[in-house]
Amino acid sequence: MKLSDIGEFGLIERFAPLFKHLIPEGLEGIGDDCAIIPINAEESLVITTDLLVEDVHFLKEHILPRELGWKSLAVSLSDIASMGATPVGSFLSIALPENIPVAWTDEFFNGYHDLSSKESTPLLGGDTTKSPDKIVVNVTVVGKILNKYIKRRSGAKPGDLIAVTGYLGDSAAGLKLILLDMAKEGVSSALARSHHMPVPHIKEGKWLSSLAEVHAMMDVSDGISSDLDHIMKASNCHAEVWLEKLPVSDHLTKVSLENGWDIYSLATGGGEDYVLLLTIDKNMEQEIKNEFFKLFGKELYIIGEVKEGLPCVDWMLNDEKVDLCKGFNHFG
Amino acid sequence: MKLSDIGEFGLIERFAPLFKHLIPEGLEGIGDDCAIIPINAEESLVITTDLLVEDVHFLKEHILPRELGWKSLAVSLSDIASMGATPVGSFLSIALPENIPVAWTDEFFNGYHDLSSKESTPLLGGDTTKSPDKIVVNVTVVGKILNKYIKRRSGAKPGDLIAVTGYLGDSAAGLKLILLDMAKEGVSSALARSHHMPVPHIKEGKWLSSLAEVHAMMDVSDGISSDLDHIMKASNCHAEVWLEKLPVSDHLTKVSLENGWDIYSLATGGGEDYVLLLTIDKNMEQEIKNEFFKLFGKELYIIGEVKEGLPCVDWMLNDEKVDLCKGFNHFG
Repeated sequence: MKLSDIGEFGLIERFAPLFKHLIPEGLEGIGDDCAIIPINAEESLVITTDLLVEDVHFLKEHILPRELGWKSLAVSLSDIASMGATPVGSFLSIALPENIPVAWTDEFFNGYHDLSSKESTPLLGGDTTKSPDKIVVNVTVVGKILNKYIKRRSGAKPGDLIAVTGYLGDSAAGLKLILLDMAKEGVSSALARSHHMPVPHIKEGKWLSSLAEVHAMMDVSDGISSDLDHIMKASNCHAEVWLEKLPVSDHLTKVSLENGWDIYSLATGGGEDYVLLLTIDKNMEQEIKNEFFKLFGKELYIIGEVKEGLPCVDWMLNDEKVDLCKGFNHFG
Repeated sequence: MKLSDIGEFGLIERFAPLFKHLIPEGLEGIGDDCAIIPINAEESLVITTDLLVEDVHFLKEHILPRELGWKSLAVSLSDIASMGATPVGSFLSIALPENIPVAWTDEFFNGYHDLSSKESTPLLGGDTTKSPDKIVVNVTVVGKILNKYIKRRSGAKPGDLIAVTGYLGDSAAGLKLILLDMAKEGVSSALARSHHMPVPHIKEGKWLSSLAEVHAMMDVSDGISSDLDHIMKASNCHAEVWLEKLPVSDHLTKVSLENGWDIYSLATGGGEDYVLLLTIDKNMEQEIKNEFFKLFGKELYIIGEVKEGLPCVDWMLNDEKVDLCKGFNHFG
């Protein structure tokens, strides 16, 4: 049996139970966006780590080194945002081929520094080494949070509304355009930028985490069809998502129409949007939406509802249940 | 200019200063074995991360997966030991080719689990992904320590004695034997084991860190010629090392004589011994050595002395200064 027969989740299921007995009470390990280490009666540290491998997560000829530096930190900061935490510092391990130009590494670190500065997150350590061929980057980020504000995947309740903090599908469309070598200018290059330089929703996460009426939260890394499934499984609830309510940008609509792409498939399954996916108390919908708009100058998008029932997701289009796997192209 | 023109330390010198302004007071970043994050008036967390890349740090055909799992955690735990801290948990990122047998990954995780159990260190999170070809492993370990016990590289004082907590050179000899395909049995296989399954000196580090008379400490990862240099630069002191006092195992002596290897070169420059290198108050030498022997059933080896002067190391053999770079083979 090969690794490809069991996949990433199969692998995790094989080894994670081995280690459970070692976790002392109070600590939380594998299962949420970050591990949680309590440091005193009021506060915890949250920690996450992400690995990016050339030709798996990025193509060197398609991404600028400055973009890769930014993105390497962004994907981990997004996990910190999803817990509602404030970043404390990052750790960067990087393996580089010896023949890589120093100008490339300078630009990589400039990009890493751009986002470090933007989010006041110091680089506190790491490891640098040569690589036989591919570039490999691993970033660990530590964050801090008041225990009472921690949002977990397991907090969703029947009756909650499901919300996201930004557009879905731009990153996936950007990747398609990059791979087709169509991301040179205008709308296409803006979508490519969503893919290469995602902006983690740290401030949004911090504010949302301070609200008792926000019950569950995670970041959209794999696409909501997979990520929402994680929340439903952790919370043992059922979800109904209204596809016509998914927030999609004009850019995404335009390129999808031009190219005949399935916009719902991109918005639900594409992933790497790094917006926040959350559930909120239905009775507070208007207050939270109004305050969110006032604070961040953008909408908090309501995309569905949590129900009692089996831990999976029903995808509805204009009140009719649809099969996401079959694909469709009803948009516009 | 290529990366190979400036090397790993050249790279670090290029980017580390960029980030200094982001580090808030109280936090310590790049420069010691671990970063230090204070969590309250008495305690800090220490964090370290290490990247292992196939064909750079290990050869898949020469190391058992169970050994690689053990070693991946051991190298980071050794950094925790060098600060005198107690491990809290680890984070493992691993990139694997899709065609790797599941039996291989099972054994890797068994080895990782063996050491996790031995040191009561839970696996708290990580990332798994496919790799186009090489295996890549990154491990981050978090530890906890009382602030008053933290030992830094910068604490050495003129007059201190320099000590190590175990044999030097076994790992380097083991690697040579492995590469020569001579590590199949007996003495050779024991040396290979030192290379593949180093045992981090966590308990020794914790006890030593509790002594005010231990002034500086780090782990031996690159070899004492490089590592001691780091301590001298951080402490702005000069060191004199007595080569005839370096602790070398009977195994190392035997294979070095048999193969005509330079035993001092292996013991000073080989690296990956993962013992602790420390400086202690000369007046407490006997008390510390006696207590160390009582607690751990082995000797604390005194190998030299810290002096005033330029931050570099004089290598002495029977009171005569020698040039390590020239090589020699006086042992035995």
